[in-house]
Amino acid sequence: MQIDHRVTNALRVVLLAAFVSGCAASQDPLPSWNDGPAKKAILEFVATVTDENGKDYVEPADRIAVFDNDGTLWVEQPIYTQVSFAFDRVKELAPQHPEWKTKQPFKALLEGDMKTVGASGMKGLIEIVMATHSGMTAAEFAKTASNWLATNKHPRFKRPYTECVYQPQLELLAYLRANGFKTFIVSGGGIQFMRPWTEKVYGIPPEQVVGSSIVTEFQIKDGKPVLVRMPKINFVNDKAGKPVGIYEHIGHRPILAFGNADADMQMIEYTLAGKGRRLGLFVHHTDADREYAYDRDSHVGKLDKALDQADANGWIIVDMKKDWKSVFPER
Amino acid sequence: MQIDHRVTNALRVVLLAAFVSGCAASQDPLPSWNDGPAKKAILEFVATVTDENGKDYVEPADRIAVFDNDGTLWVEQPIYTQVSFAFDRVKELAPQHPEWKTKQPFKALLEGDMKTVGASGMKGLIEIVMATHSGMTAAEFAKTASNWLATNKHPRFKRPYTECVYQPQLELLAYLRANGFKTFIVSGGGIQFMRPWTEKVYGIPPEQVVGSSIVTEFQIKDGKPVLVRMPKINFVNDKAGKPVGIYEHIGHRPILAFGNADADMQMIEYTLAGKGRRLGLFVHHTDADREYAYDRDSHVGKLDKALDQADANGWIIVDMKKDWKSVFPER
Repeated sequence: MQIDHRVTNALRVVLLAAFVSGCAASQDPLPSWNDGPAKKAILEFVATVTDENGKDYVEPADRIAVFDNDGTLWVEQPIYTQVSFAFDRVKELAPQHPEWKTKQPFKALLEGDMKTVGASGMKGLIEIVMATHSGMTAAEFAKTASNWLATNKHPRFKRPYTECVYQPQLELLAYLRANGFKTFIVSGGGIQFMRPWTEKVYGIPPEQVVGSSIVTEFQIKDGKPVLVRMPKINFVNDKAGKPVGIYEHIGHRPILAFGNADADMQMIEYTLAGKGRRLGLFVHHTDADREYAYDRDSHVGKLDKALDQADANGWIIVDMKKDWKSVFPER
Repeated sequence: MQIDHRVTNALRVVLLAAFVSGCAASQDPLPSWNDGPAKKAILEFVATVTDENGKDYVEPADRIAVFDNDGTLWVEQPIYTQVSFAFDRVKELAPQHPEWKTKQPFKALLEGDMKTVGASGMKGLIEIVMATHSGMTAAEFAKTASNWLATNKHPRFKRPYTECVYQPQLELLAYLRANGFKTFIVSGGGIQFMRPWTEKVYGIPPEQVVGSSIVTEFQIKDGKPVLVRMPKINFVNDKAGKPVGIYEHIGHRPILAFGNADADMQMIEYTLAGKGRRLGLFVHHTDADREYAYDRDSHVGKLDKALDQADANGWIIVDMKKDWKSVFPER
């Protein structure tokens, strides 16, 4: 009786699953990708590594796919979203920091003199990040970042930053997972800035996000154990740091890596240097109308050497204008 | 026709699943645990957090369980397995290091003078670890560690180290996963020493292993991108480092933490400080006949303060002798 009931219920599920799967077979898993060499390469790669009878079959445990975030999964122009967050935080925190009125690059930022802020370079940017990303608990930082993202919009697209993500990539992430892949973010951005929202937006849980970090300390505060973010860089997950971050966090080599800049070359080289079939891809931002057009001379997401070396290395260059039917999710 | 075939196949799976599940309902998920307060606490905790109608329900995404490794999942006496590996490596590498004949602690180790090795303390141990864990690629190290584990046995139990794991804990890991938990190792041991075998032995994939690490560098060697292990400590995932390692790697707070030593207290305090139902447990090694008996005065896995504070904090002390019906898997 118990079993009869279970079988009846299970049958319903099976019949539904067979129906859905029958429908799905005729559906395009990547509807926002135009037919072309990039889409073809992706479909062919996934079919090959999941074919149990093929010589290039890859066990599900080794189907690791890594994605850069800024410029690969979401918009990185006119400036990185996290930098925009840091700038806003300086303005909000200014009343508690009277010394910023005379201290660069804070002074320039508070006066809207972005030329001087820019001239302060990486050193200035790090000072701004430290001042806005440390000195609070892990939980406080997560809340501040989430609140900012919930209440601010992209200056051009007038939608929340978490909706300035690329629809074709959302489809690709889901398609890979449906084929037994585990999807990871491997970003130069702050690991804890991304984690509060990646599950909801990309379907990627916090533990599958790799990024740059500052030092954190375990402390007892008011009798409670807390993690306090310290004003000291822990790890820069960019360029040659990306394969190192992959080794530390994931511990096995991906078989697919997707980036959009020269800073992703090492991650893709490392991915492709493994045995068997591998796939390395770059988004090329070619679409000034729907998004942005930039590459060799851009101050963010510079794509130069990778364009020159793509053919020789078998890297797939995804041309946003030609390859993507739509850019952002419909609202 | 396609669908008919699918349904037939699916039906077989369903009937089998219903049968297995019918059997399982009457089966004990933790057969190697004796009935007692520890087993009761575990079963009750899992039932509570998975009860969708209960006020303490926890979403599957937040069902994170973390386990220490040495002394919690496998034997750590008479010395940590990884230290035994490092000592053996010194002996193997000695021909390439004539300077070790006169340099401590290598000289003492090669002469079998363990008292002098012990007297060199943490500083000496770090020198030995650096000399044996760095200076090779990531792939070379994984191979060396795997080969050693495949060919060496525990001095007392005369079985491979990877079979000196605790059967009750293997059942607990499987039981948690069957209830939607994601299981992680959070160990003071070397992260890359564990990763080659944790999936096979514990069902925990490399990306769910957190541990101590040395610095790794991305390099191009003979035209190939490789990761080279450097003689420099990167992170010590022990004591107050454990909650930090959890924050870095997992990014959300566990709801269950299992350790066996005072060095696990911070991890368990951090776990229990979150909202909602939580469970913190320690293995107490009380079984000199079947394994070892040690606690307050032990040189490894010292369990002292945690024993004193357990009652006040609601920590479960698992008494190996009383709570575990068997210790190791049957061969």
